[in-house]
Amino acid sequence: MTYAVAFRLERGLVFAADTRTNAGVDNIAQYKKLQLWRQPGDRVFVLLSAGNLAATQAVVSLINEHLSQETDEEVTTLFTAPNMYRAARVVGDAVREARSIDGAALEASKLGFNTNFIFGGQIKGERPRLFQIYPEGNFIEATDDTPFFQIGEHKYGKPILDRVARSDMRLGQAAKLMLLSFDSTLRSNLSVGMPIDIVIYERDTFDVTREKRISADDEYFRNLSNAWSDALRQAFAKIEEFDV
Amino acid sequence: MTYAVAFRLERGLVFAADTRTNAGVDNIAQYKKLQLWRQPGDRVFVLLSAGNLAATQAVVSLINEHLSQETDEEVTTLFTAPNMYRAARVVGDAVREARSIDGAALEASKLGFNTNFIFGGQIKGERPRLFQIYPEGNFIEATDDTPFFQIGEHKYGKPILDRVARSDMRLGQAAKLMLLSFDSTLRSNLSVGMPIDIVIYERDTFDVTREKRISADDEYFRNLSNAWSDALRQAFAKIEEFDV
Repeated sequence: MTYAVAFRLERGLVFAADTRTNAGVDNIAQYKKLQLWRQPGDRVFVLLSAGNLAATQAVVSLINEHLSQETDEEVTTLFTAPNMYRAARVVGDAVREARSIDGAALEASKLGFNTNFIFGGQIKGERPRLFQIYPEGNFIEATDDTPFFQIGEHKYGKPILDRVARSDMRLGQAAKLMLLSFDSTLRSNLSVGMPIDIVIYERDTFDVTREKRISADDEYFRNLSNAWSDALRQAFAKIEEFDV
Repeated sequence: MTYAVAFRLERGLVFAADTRTNAGVDNIAQYKKLQLWRQPGDRVFVLLSAGNLAATQAVVSLINEHLSQETDEEVTTLFTAPNMYRAARVVGDAVREARSIDGAALEASKLGFNTNFIFGGQIKGERPRLFQIYPEGNFIEATDDTPFFQIGEHKYGKPILDRVARSDMRLGQAAKLMLLSFDSTLRSNLSVGMPIDIVIYERDTFDVTREKRISADDEYFRNLSNAWSDALRQAFAKIEEFDV
């Protein structure tokens, strides 16, 4: 399983994904589920993935293959897409291509082609945009009403997002909120594991300079986790007991 | 969907269940998912149900049918079970009986026989005990290590339980905690709906006097929900922002 979440804010985008993969509880491993592409000064893309690791890796490989192919054909790639909508279609097309390769075999063994993506970034001339891409290759875009997307094991960490998330948050506030959402998920589900990869993209910078891998012994994360636990316990103690 | 949760504490048992059922989002209704049986002075049982409503109602009907049948056969019922383990087997047997009646037809239409129960109570001579009964009719029992069970849409409301639940809590504290867990679930999932039925059973009383249906305009619940939201926002604001 996986937990990944991304915010689309007025000030930019924030992405975070865990790194645990598992095939059964007795076969766990660590993989980066956050991919970054950039042409500094012109465009930046981040892709978060959840689901079957073979399928998500195939999608990334296909995207990269198209990027590196020198061809006279006019094939749109991440680096030639004129806007984020077309860039999201490039990812969606790669999902469909991977499905056409592996889908039948996966469905024959009842696994199914099950992979979800969050894709965001900014291309010069547009504001930053954020998409959730389905296993079918189609996608939805985040708006001010719902400024975040989650994929994978999303339920444990959703209540705190539902309460606090706003599209006018500062980027550091949103990153803090995402890490709290991770903290709740990590406590309740073993299939989501540290470290967490986090990327903060500041609007109109067209480059990524704020990127970090947060490990279990990260001081900020440990303090945040402890402070949150203490605050919740104190808040709980202050509320009147139920009586009937 | 459903959300139901129960605690097994040193001081007794606390049960809560929502009342929303739905067959698709365009067909919702209200049903009580908390059943109570008692022989004051001797035994008390509470059953919470989640899953296919026809199946859970069939199980309850079968339990009641056995209770009302006058027979010379030595059939164990809830009122003749010598201990809670045997009472849980009575419920498990009713689950298997319902499955033998409806299971094949449900599986033929790909719905499956999908119903989960939490069953708890106290029989004179034992301490209060709490079980989670699976669709297969087998069950597990709560211990001090994990003093609660959840069924139905359990993920949204689990982080707060994981952080705060302890088997030495007061009953009113546990009820408060369960209602906070409901509050998080109600905000994030439309298929769980008010009112909430709650039963507090005090150890060794062998009767239930503390029982309430909590509606959306219940003053205690509204205050709890608001106080919790405020406390979370304040706690969030106090934690240092993430920076990298």
